[in-house]
Amino acid sequence: MRKWNTAVVSREEQRQQKRQAVLNVGVRLFNDRGYSQTSLDDIASELNITKRTIYYYVENKEEILQECIRIGIKFIEEIVELCANKKAPPLDLIRVLVEKYSKWLSQDIGAALVLTKEISLSPEIRTSLRDAKRALDTCLRGMIQAGIDDGSIRVCDPRFASAAIFGALNWVPFWNRDGKPAPEDQISSQFLDIFLSGLEPR
Amino acid sequence: MRKWNTAVVSREEQRQQKRQAVLNVGVRLFNDRGYSQTSLDDIASELNITKRTIYYYVENKEEILQECIRIGIKFIEEIVELCANKKAPPLDLIRVLVEKYSKWLSQDIGAALVLTKEISLSPEIRTSLRDAKRALDTCLRGMIQAGIDDGSIRVCDPRFASAAIFGALNWVPFWNRDGKPAPEDQISSQFLDIFLSGLEPR
Repeated sequence: MRKWNTAVVSREEQRQQKRQAVLNVGVRLFNDRGYSQTSLDDIASELNITKRTIYYYVENKEEILQECIRIGIKFIEEIVELCANKKAPPLDLIRVLVEKYSKWLSQDIGAALVLTKEISLSPEIRTSLRDAKRALDTCLRGMIQAGIDDGSIRVCDPRFASAAIFGALNWVPFWNRDGKPAPEDQISSQFLDIFLSGLEPR
Repeated sequence: MRKWNTAVVSREEQRQQKRQAVLNVGVRLFNDRGYSQTSLDDIASELNITKRTIYYYVENKEEILQECIRIGIKFIEEIVELCANKKAPPLDLIRVLVEKYSKWLSQDIGAALVLTKEISLSPEIRTSLRDAKRALDTCLRGMIQAGIDDGSIRVCDPRFASAAIFGALNWVPFWNRDGKPAPEDQISSQFLDIFLSGLEPR
């Protein structure tokens, strides 16, 4: 049970929740229309608030995008750390990475990682994002190589295997946003099945 | 041997060749910087010509993008027709589709098919592009289903298999443009190997 003085969320918590709503709506519009085609007015109007109100939560639209990408970078760093430190067979770790990453991309804030043009980002965030993506790629390649070494994955070039897997996953936000999106867990399990077993009968 | 009166290319042919150069440079800049961040001035300056000269070849930057996408749509329609009319085992047709499509995407004008935001296109071209992409997807799904039916492909959901394959291919222009790009034929053969045989040892 919450204590009396925390039973009602504080003013600052309320502000944080509303700020999160601004980020969520902002990033959804950026994903749909493109960052440069979206104004702070569009975001305020989608939230049914005035532009003056929105300034209480964010300074400008740059802040919305950079903050969402920063959260995405943090998420990537967490997966990389998880996979680097977990003792488990390589194929199991690959499954974990694919499932977690696929789930992340199915949210608006996650899809921004792949739908955002680099040119929209400040040089600093752009570099951090590139570094994080490179670390994730290195992580997957390493697990594929570890599988080749222990015989659980057949001999292949980990660079291309990783590129194929991330390509398939990164492309999902491009086709699975309109109409009736396919459930994210179905996508990741079907993709894993194809990547691991291939299309040819065994 | 060319006849005397065609030994030198005509004024109109020269114009067409130069127009093609405008399209090629234009689409490369759109792919690199984004369409809305590129001006006709940027394109003229990259070609070392004046803006006045560029107007002899195109009316505006819209024309460059729309024309490139139109050429891409025609290319997609040709693959679909080829695969629909060729009598060959499904796996062979899938190989043809992957190789041709991958080769197309390795050129700037081809990469525009996946790097261009729909919002930059006129409603008419946008609809044609969606139709063409849908037809290509339907074509690949049909070949996968035909392979399942004749036993050359194991039972799977052709929707997700097609989405994984196009995802991997469509993502290539996002990572293979800078520095030393991997050769396109290596990418398509490595990808085919992964899609067909999977990562697990047989």
